[in-house]
Amino acid sequence: MADKPARGLADVVAASTALSDIDGKAGRLFYRGYDIHDLAGRITFEECVHLLQRGTLPTQAELDDFTAELAANRELGPTAADLVPRLTSSGTPMEALRSLISVLSVDDPDAAESTPEANQRKALRLVAQTPVLIARYQATRSGRTPVQPDEGLDLAANFLLQITGKRPSPREAEIFDECLVLHADHTMNASTFTARVVAATLSDMHSAITAAVGALRGPLHGGANEAVMKTLQSIDGGVGEVEPFVREHLGSGKKIMGFGHRVYKTEDPRATHLRKASEELADLTGNRQYYEMSRRMEQVVMEVKGLYPNVDFYAASVYYALGIPIDLFTSVFAISRMSGWTSHVIEQHLDNRLIRPDSEYIGERDQKWIPIEDR
Amino acid sequence: MADKPARGLADVVAASTALSDIDGKAGRLFYRGYDIHDLAGRITFEECVHLLQRGTLPTQAELDDFTAELAANRELGPTAADLVPRLTSSGTPMEALRSLISVLSVDDPDAAESTPEANQRKALRLVAQTPVLIARYQATRSGRTPVQPDEGLDLAANFLLQITGKRPSPREAEIFDECLVLHADHTMNASTFTARVVAATLSDMHSAITAAVGALRGPLHGGANEAVMKTLQSIDGGVGEVEPFVREHLGSGKKIMGFGHRVYKTEDPRATHLRKASEELADLTGNRQYYEMSRRMEQVVMEVKGLYPNVDFYAASVYYALGIPIDLFTSVFAISRMSGWTSHVIEQHLDNRLIRPDSEYIGERDQKWIPIEDR
Repeated sequence: MADKPARGLADVVAASTALSDIDGKAGRLFYRGYDIHDLAGRITFEECVHLLQRGTLPTQAELDDFTAELAANRELGPTAADLVPRLTSSGTPMEALRSLISVLSVDDPDAAESTPEANQRKALRLVAQTPVLIARYQATRSGRTPVQPDEGLDLAANFLLQITGKRPSPREAEIFDECLVLHADHTMNASTFTARVVAATLSDMHSAITAAVGALRGPLHGGANEAVMKTLQSIDGGVGEVEPFVREHLGSGKKIMGFGHRVYKTEDPRATHLRKASEELADLTGNRQYYEMSRRMEQVVMEVKGLYPNVDFYAASVYYALGIPIDLFTSVFAISRMSGWTSHVIEQHLDNRLIRPDSEYIGERDQKWIPIEDR
Repeated sequence: MADKPARGLADVVAASTALSDIDGKAGRLFYRGYDIHDLAGRITFEECVHLLQRGTLPTQAELDDFTAELAANRELGPTAADLVPRLTSSGTPMEALRSLISVLSVDDPDAAESTPEANQRKALRLVAQTPVLIARYQATRSGRTPVQPDEGLDLAANFLLQITGKRPSPREAEIFDECLVLHADHTMNASTFTARVVAATLSDMHSAITAAVGALRGPLHGGANEAVMKTLQSIDGGVGEVEPFVREHLGSGKKIMGFGHRVYKTEDPRATHLRKASEELADLTGNRQYYEMSRRMEQVVMEVKGLYPNVDFYAASVYYALGIPIDLFTSVFAISRMSGWTSHVIEQHLDNRLIRPDSEYIGERDQKWIPIEDR
């Protein structure tokens, strides 16, 4: 048995993967060997899902088939559809998403199988249905009739249409599509690792993905994008108030969400693209407030703590500018990461070994049982 | 970054815990420093839950309070209760349990809080409600009215009453109670580790426990007890056919479930007690077939492969003799392990660090993006 505890498993290699790779020192991220800087803004989310789940960037014919398959598998089964209204009166969107993803298995014809083919079909359905679940949830809690998807729009544009109730401009849809590409996979982040630990018991796709949604919910993981937006909104007085806020906050030992990363020692390459997206949306919408505040916050946090913004930081102002309700930001992250999670489950099942670490015992030893009447 | 992959994290210390400890060489298991051999058959499951969740073996007054608190928190909220009939027409009991545990958060008054106090209350409710969820599921799919719990019975006896529809004999109830104690916690098994990875994002109790249920479902983890029973039932001709079956099965490279363990290099101490329980139930019920077959199988597997039975092996014939339907065996494991899972979440939140390992990249490198029309 090992004796040196690796708290948080930092720097411990827990799995092998051909899906993504990070060079933390150089600030580079690769999906199946493609640099994220080469993919962002150049491939659609559908191409990205194909790359991760199927292994290659699709030809046009493959992409057409794949897109048609996604559209054909978008409709929710009755169990999930009927559960939505039970989940809107109390609880958070991520709790609802966790339960809804879990019940999707009831109506999935491949639920009982974990063959590579069945896993591929379930993976595709999960990517197709996650935005629909979130849109249905949003419509239900707003008392609106769900907006039907537009067959002429891709997954990203359809989601914005269904969430906001209005057709996004082509450029808004492109920017959101790029966000989905940027969040798709990221090696052994906590939710992906969760999915692999579950899958490694040879449990099924829906069990692994439900678990991952639960992990993404945490404020130290996907929940950070919502926390960033709430921080920005909590600063009264705009850009000029950012510096005193940050200094006071960090000075009193508190954390500011959206900065620093376990793996990157320089700028997160996704932040580079999201900063640009935030700026472009500021210009497009004419509302520059949160972009400007974010820029200022980035400068001050760098001065005081030397920390870089991570993927969550500029995602906040981007999603906000796109009209996405703040408490759905983490769910939106899940739409994208669903492509990575499902691909990791497929990969784990193809070459499986149970993931079962050790623990270090730190409690009392040699306790003697005594009868209850003598305690 | 580390460069040596630890496949399956074998022998990697992933967390510190004061809950349980294993000496794999000596075949010893401890809950908070108490040897399982001192606890099995001497403490009730309620005492065991108190030991894990609250830290001490209770005095009689503490136990009375704790038992009353469990009984007072047994009733299901409307969301879970109404979902049960939607989950019985298709899918497995563990899929249903995963979804039901997930929706419990909707009606939990502490769902939004992860303070130590809120975690304790949620942990207690989850232990109280898990057997009720399973009993409700069983009644619903059998077209029976759910049996009301008997206030004079403990958790173990009430579960047998509700599942079988008849009051268990005192000795049957005691044996089942001992099974629950034996399965309560077991260091960093895959489902407990899953719960801790989820909790370490500072996600909530229900997210962590839902994830753990999904992991337990896997045939390499909790699902093994069902597989053992199916194996025993698949052997036509009784005890005399066990040896040829095992030799043929292992000879052709197949595995027999219920043997071997990542951590124990000798007999699993839980198997010692479960073997005795299986034998006693064989005597009590007059049906010795599966106990005798299990004994024989244990001998032959030891001769051929040198493997010891693990916790799942004799649990199968025990649960079967107690009248529990085979496809509920893993759910029964969850009733017990709920006490360990919830205690690990409480512990993780008290001294948290994000669990975020590295991965080793094994895919293609230096891929060049080309426009879709040129692919």
